[in-house]
Amino acid sequence: MRDSFHTIVIGAGSGGLTVAVGLANLGKPVAVIEALHVGGDCTNVGCVPSKTLIHQAEERGAHDPIGALAEVRRKRDALREKETHEFGELKNLSLIFGRARLAGSGRVVVALPEGGERTLSAAHIVIATGARPRVIPIAGLPADRTLTNESVFEIAAAPRHLAIIGGGVIGMELAFAFRKLGSQVSVITTAPRVMDRFLPEVSAALDASLRAKGVAVYAEASAHSYDEARATLCVERAGQLTALEGVDYVLIAVGRERNLEGLGLETAGVRFSPREGIATDSYGRTSVPGIYAIGDVTATSAFTHSANAQGRRVVQRIAFPWLPARAPEPFYPSATFSDPEVATAGMRQQQIAERFHPKLLRRIRVDLVTQTDRGYTDDLRQGFIMVDALRLTGQILSVTIVGPRASEMIPLFTLAIQEGLSLYKLYRVVYPYPTFSSGIQKVADAFLRATLTGLRGELFAYLRYRWARPAPDASASWPTPSRG
Amino acid sequence: MRDSFHTIVIGAGSGGLTVAVGLANLGKPVAVIEALHVGGDCTNVGCVPSKTLIHQAEERGAHDPIGALAEVRRKRDALREKETHEFGELKNLSLIFGRARLAGSGRVVVALPEGGERTLSAAHIVIATGARPRVIPIAGLPADRTLTNESVFEIAAAPRHLAIIGGGVIGMELAFAFRKLGSQVSVITTAPRVMDRFLPEVSAALDASLRAKGVAVYAEASAHSYDEARATLCVERAGQLTALEGVDYVLIAVGRERNLEGLGLETAGVRFSPREGIATDSYGRTSVPGIYAIGDVTATSAFTHSANAQGRRVVQRIAFPWLPARAPEPFYPSATFSDPEVATAGMRQQQIAERFHPKLLRRIRVDLVTQTDRGYTDDLRQGFIMVDALRLTGQILSVTIVGPRASEMIPLFTLAIQEGLSLYKLYRVVYPYPTFSSGIQKVADAFLRATLTGLRGELFAYLRYRWARPAPDASASWPTPSRG
Repeated sequence: MRDSFHTIVIGAGSGGLTVAVGLANLGKPVAVIEALHVGGDCTNVGCVPSKTLIHQAEERGAHDPIGALAEVRRKRDALREKETHEFGELKNLSLIFGRARLAGSGRVVVALPEGGERTLSAAHIVIATGARPRVIPIAGLPADRTLTNESVFEIAAAPRHLAIIGGGVIGMELAFAFRKLGSQVSVITTAPRVMDRFLPEVSAALDASLRAKGVAVYAEASAHSYDEARATLCVERAGQLTALEGVDYVLIAVGRERNLEGLGLETAGVRFSPREGIATDSYGRTSVPGIYAIGDVTATSAFTHSANAQGRRVVQRIAFPWLPARAPEPFYPSATFSDPEVATAGMRQQQIAERFHPKLLRRIRVDLVTQTDRGYTDDLRQGFIMVDALRLTGQILSVTIVGPRASEMIPLFTLAIQEGLSLYKLYRVVYPYPTFSSGIQKVADAFLRATLTGLRGELFAYLRYRWARPAPDASASWPTPSRG
Repeated sequence: MRDSFHTIVIGAGSGGLTVAVGLANLGKPVAVIEALHVGGDCTNVGCVPSKTLIHQAEERGAHDPIGALAEVRRKRDALREKETHEFGELKNLSLIFGRARLAGSGRVVVALPEGGERTLSAAHIVIATGARPRVIPIAGLPADRTLTNESVFEIAAAPRHLAIIGGGVIGMELAFAFRKLGSQVSVITTAPRVMDRFLPEVSAALDASLRAKGVAVYAEASAHSYDEARATLCVERAGQLTALEGVDYVLIAVGRERNLEGLGLETAGVRFSPREGIATDSYGRTSVPGIYAIGDVTATSAFTHSANAQGRRVVQRIAFPWLPARAPEPFYPSATFSDPEVATAGMRQQQIAERFHPKLLRRIRVDLVTQTDRGYTDDLRQGFIMVDALRLTGQILSVTIVGPRASEMIPLFTLAIQEGLSLYKLYRVVYPYPTFSSGIQKVADAFLRATLTGLRGELFAYLRYRWARPAPDASASWPTPSRG
């Protein structure tokens, strides 16, 4: 049994496997150490079961929630087995089950599930241990009534009344899915609105959609206590208590905690913080040469696709170290598979505010309900495209799309931002009719109209504010959206 | 009443209204002459009712076909009234109902519906009269059993058994929609396959989907005769006759005929042919200065979005004649809202074969069913992305996507082709997971792998065939697809 490898990858989730398979295919001997299941969160407790559930809920609805949930587990198990088998068979790749810790000098000690330890060594070590759901205690709530994304797909039947603590991506996706399966659903969030890390318009659209589907939303509220005998969850809001009755399950989706413990990061001297995770440069390099980190355990990735993208960069760094390593890490797109979907690309609002004077910005919003014919034919209830661009030049900074299959529309903007293509270029594109994408045409139309009808003012504003310092409190002076 | 205008537009369909509204908004007095309904085919007998029907069929299914069809008419009528009102109220725009004919020297004579004529004049005349369904006679088939896209949305209930003559875009869209509404559906086409203007892989996917949904397909077949007493359509295939029983409606969707008659084209000296329509340059200019043509009446447009795009180019030509007029007309994307959808961008196969040696081409096919995780979670049955690119450079020539919301995915490729972005650029894009768009990543991966693992051969092929003449019969030596 080999103990010396080219690279050791800790964690067989999406990011870790991207590195491992990439290097193995290049002929490098790689060990992958996994504590639980091949495929990590994505295959086992994340993207795959949640998207299967969303699809099943759409297809079977309230008629067959038991069948839907069984199918979720069947497909998850089948994929896990297939991946475990495939990666186990891959040339140059050794899959080792156990818990890994760094032991310094390129060594990794693996605590084996059958007992005992094994010491491996490699020139390169990649930490891809991911994250886990953060759990908050609720007085009186027993463990068998508590769910997280790690346990929710194990339940056999749809809850009678599912209380979801948290209004973020996971909370939203599961709220819509379980509502379609017939559950009564209540969302409780301490934030002033659901999806509070996104634009207020996103929150408004999802809030409206939740309520239209009969989901109750309690904002600026928290779970106070649970009365098991009465199956009642007590919610506190502004000092007032409200009793949610018949709550048989409470799903906690209030955020994630990085898996940093027991890894020997201190021993190895790897710089990290509990809040930001393992510190890396844009190519995944940690403070210790030869040790890399990618995915949820780092500061910049919270998605499978970003973990994969980081994995590709690490493969490039390890396998082709002579290639220049100057490209900044891209802005990763986001996708939330709610109903409607939410997808974003480009800079976050905070990053825009830090870099640009607010008077340099133009925001265009096109409503997909009233401004596209597809919205009309399809009886769309909520949807828009919102673009923040630089005045005059039309350089695209940030895009948010809410609507059906927004996740399939966002890559056009990711590409445009990556290649520096302005709204003038998007104006020239012919979009098929009738699609929601034709809303992109309307965004470009609105930008051109606003720019050409006030060209002198736009030119002046551009020259005046191009190099101006951002406002001290940029968010307060954020321009109001102009409808395209 | 004004009789002299800046521009006269003949036909108030999508293309004509694009020109009229564009010029009116620029302050030019415009007359629009319409023989029937504002909105043309798109609003009245095309995109809008068909997409509403597709949506309604998806939502209501076989439970409520009568409600679905009533809703189609309600939404169509509401939109028609809204558009008629809005365009009638627009400043600088005069909407005149009647039949127009060119009378030479910038004059147009309008035969009014109430009788009498009116002569208008303008410096610019735009012909946008569109097309109509081509009707073929079927022995014994009475008029009230015969449907085209102009009459199909008038029926009150879903047919018991709908026979569709024609396997093109309209035939496919309506076959899936009526099948979902509970009709028995049979498709009869003289072509060897449905969607025979697309790649054979498109035909195979739609054929499989039709059959899986219980639609019978008769290829290389034609409608021989109809027996009204027995409600039987007799289909002839390779000399054999097959009787389709219980056929209460026959939808004829075998192609379109351009509305060239009665326009006075000969009088005005406008060059045209019944086969190719009115001849224009890439900015819609006909053989007569001051007379333009756009949309279905020309050779290059068969879609609302292409008619609109042509309309924009004409507006540019008329309103800003000093702008350079050199940009070639783009390759218009296509979208078919079948189940799954079909969308294409870039050159047609014939155009590729005429320009490039087949050995210069690389075709990449990524299967969305087996090669994307979204295909797995969503139980996708048919779907793929097929890209034809130049070897070595990765320049994208042509793209076909089959899958859910393919019409929303294609604009990324339209943009990439327009801006000359190669597959190397698409490789760098981070696509949200799990989406069908991540298949684009796999296309780029496959291209890079094929190129980098055989770089010497690719370089040789590129240098050898870059300026080589295309093969005399290029289609015969077309490369077989390599799976990504």
